Amino acid sequence: MNKLINDPADVVAEALLGIEAAHPDLRVDHQHKIVYRGDAPRRGKVGLISGGGSGHEPLHGGFVGPGMLDAACCGEVFTSPVPEQMLEATKAVDGGAGVLHIVKNYTGDVMNFEMAAELAAETGVEVLSVVTDDDVAVQDSTWTAGRRGVGATVLLEKIAGAAAEQERTLKEVADVAREVNANARSMGIALTSCTVPANGKPTFELGDSEMEVGVGIHGEPGRRRVPLAPAREIADLLLEPILADLPFSRGDRVITFVNGLGGTPLIELYLMYNEVAKILSAHGIETARSLVGPYITSLDMAGCSVTLLRASDELLQLWDAPVRTPALRWGI
Amino acid sequence: MNKLINDPADVVAEALLGIEAAHPDLRVDHQHKIVYRGDAPRRGKVGLISGGGSGHEPLHGGFVGPGMLDAACCGEVFTSPVPEQMLEATKAVDGGAGVLHIVKNYTGDVMNFEMAAELAAETGVEVLSVVTDDDVAVQDSTWTAGRRGVGATVLLEKIAGAAAEQERTLKEVADVAREVNANARSMGIALTSCTVPANGKPTFELGDSEMEVGVGIHGEPGRRRVPLAPAREIADLLLEPILADLPFSRGDRVITFVNGLGGTPLIELYLMYNEVAKILSAHGIETARSLVGPYITSLDMAGCSVTLLRASDELLQLWDAPVRTPALRWGI
Repeated sequence: MNKLINDPADVVAEALLGIEAAHPDLRVDHQHKIVYRGDAPRRGKVGLISGGGSGHEPLHGGFVGPGMLDAACCGEVFTSPVPEQMLEATKAVDGGAGVLHIVKNYTGDVMNFEMAAELAAETGVEVLSVVTDDDVAVQDSTWTAGRRGVGATVLLEKIAGAAAEQERTLKEVADVAREVNANARSMGIALTSCTVPANGKPTFELGDSEMEVGVGIHGEPGRRRVPLAPAREIADLLLEPILADLPFSRGDRVITFVNGLGGTPLIELYLMYNEVAKILSAHGIETARSLVGPYITSLDMAGCSVTLLRASDELLQLWDAPVRTPALRWGI
Repeated sequence: MNKLINDPADVVAEALLGIEAAHPDLRVDHQHKIVYRGDAPRRGKVGLISGGGSGHEPLHGGFVGPGMLDAACCGEVFTSPVPEQMLEATKAVDGGAGVLHIVKNYTGDVMNFEMAAELAAETGVEVLSVVTDDDVAVQDSTWTAGRRGVGATVLLEKIAGAAAEQERTLKEVADVAREVNANARSMGIALTSCTVPANGKPTFELGDSEMEVGVGIHGEPGRRRVPLAPAREIADLLLEPILADLPFSRGDRVITFVNGLGGTPLIELYLMYNEVAKILSAHGIETARSLVGPYITSLDMAGCSVTLLRASDELLQLWDAPVRTPALRWGI
C-alpha cells in the first residue's frame, strides 16, 4: 500500500490536524470531525453545510470559507458522517437565517442528513436540504437508490455559497442550489482502482489495459469494463450520455469541469479537457467557464470525470463571485 | 500504461491545447510551445520567464499570469526546451525593463537558457538569470552538476513575480529571486515510480513496500532505498537534512510547502503536513505561510516533497501579493 499514512485507523483524524495547521482561518472540531469557517456563525447569512465520507478531498473540507461552505462534516473514508455531526454543525453555523444541507445522493448520507435536519428543527433551527444526483452512469448503484451525486456538488457548493453570501433567504439559496443540480450532468471513468487504507488492497481489480466506464467515486461499478482507449474516445464515451441526458442543446452555455480522481496528474487532465472542448464545440455548446483539476476524488484512483452545468447569467455571476477556501480561491 | 492520452508523442502539444481552451486569459504559441500571459509584454515591467521539461504540471505553464510568470517554455516530457523557445519568449515578454530567466538546475536547462540569454543580449534585450538548486538530497545527480532545483522554484516564481509587478528593476527582481533560492531547502520521497508516456513502462522499479528517499522529479535516484515507513518517520527523514543544511534555527519564520508528486491524493498530503508541522514546532520554527498540494510533480509518481523557505517580512509581503494564474490565485 503506497500511502503516506501512519495507522490506517487515524487517516481522517490526522488529515484534519493537517488542515487545521495549514489553514489558520479555518477551525476544526476534532471530536466531531467538523471543519468550520473561522468566523461562523455569520449573523443574517444562511449557513451552508455539507459532508460525507472522507477520501474525496478537497471535497468537502477544502471548500469551507467565505463564499462557499460554513462547515463540512467528515466521515471515515467512504463512510457517511453520523447525524450527531450534522446536528452539531447545523447548530453551530446557524446565524438566524437557517441552514442548507448539501447532500450527495448516497443512502447513508441522505438518511443521516435527514435525521439531523429533524433533530435540528426540534431545536428551532430552520433547515432545508438539497440532494445532488448528477451522475448519468447508472440509475441505482451499490450505495444509492437513484443516481449518485458527484461533480455537480463542487459547482453547487460554490454557487449556493455565493448566493448565501448575498444574504438571500434560505428558500432562495435552496432554489439556486436545486437549479444547479437540475442543470448538471456528470460521468466518470477509472483507469485504476483505489485502495481504502483500512483494507490495504485495491477495492476492485482492473487490468493494466482496461478501464471502468461510469465508475462511482467509491469504486462502485459503472456501465461496463472495456479495453483502455485513447483520450479522444474516452471523452466521447463520457460526453455522449451526458449530452443526451439533460439534454444539452446547440447554443447552451455551460461550465465545463474536468475533474481528476486523485491519481491522475494535471497534464492528462488538460489533455482530456482539450478532447472535451472539441466535442462541445462540434455540438455548438459554449463553455462560459471551466474548471480543471482534482476537486472530487476517490483516494488514489487514476481517472477522471466530466461535469457539464448549463448556466444562466445568474449562475455565472454567482460562480464568478469572490471565494476564499483552501481549494477554490479568487477575488479575496 | 494507465494514462489519459492519445499518441504518446502528442501529450505535450495536446495538453497545451487544453490549457489554451481552459484559460482564455492566457495565450499559447503552439509552434514554440510557449504559454504567455495574455497581456504580455507589459511596458516597464520586468518580464519573467521560466520553463523546462514537461511532466511537472502545474509547473511552469500553470504559473503564468499577473503576479507570477509572463511566459513558460515547455519542453517534451522530462526534456529541456531548446534555446530557440527561450529566445522567442524572451523577446516577446520584454517590455523594455529586461527579462529574468528562472532556471531549475539541470544541465540541459542551464545550458539552453544560457545560450538563449546570449542570443537575446545580441538583439538588445537585457537578461539576468537565477538558477534554483534547493534539493538537499544529493550533490550531483543523473542530470545535474550540483544540486537539483525543485520546490523552491514554485515559491520563487510567486515572490519574484510580485516584485516584478511592483515595477522593480531587473537587478532588484533578480536579487529577490536569489534571496528565495538561498533561503530555501527541499527534499522528496517516492512511493512509486513515474511512467514517461513515450517509454510506456515505469522509469524505475520500486517494490510495494519500498520507498526512494531523496528522489528527483524525473525519477532520479535519491540517497537510498528503504522499507516503506509511517508518515511520521518519512517526515523525519525529509526534515532532518533540510533543517541541518541551511541551517534553520529556533525562531526562524518559514513558508512551509508540502508538495504532491502527482499520484498522491490530497488527504495524504494534509496528513504529511501535520507531521511536518509537529517537527517544526518541536524545533521552535514558526510557519508563517503554508502551501499544500501538487504544484511541482513528476507525472504520476506517488510521493511528496517538503520545501522550507526562511522568509523575511519582505518575502512574506511579496508572497501575499495578488496573483492570478491557473494554479495559484488570490486577491484578483
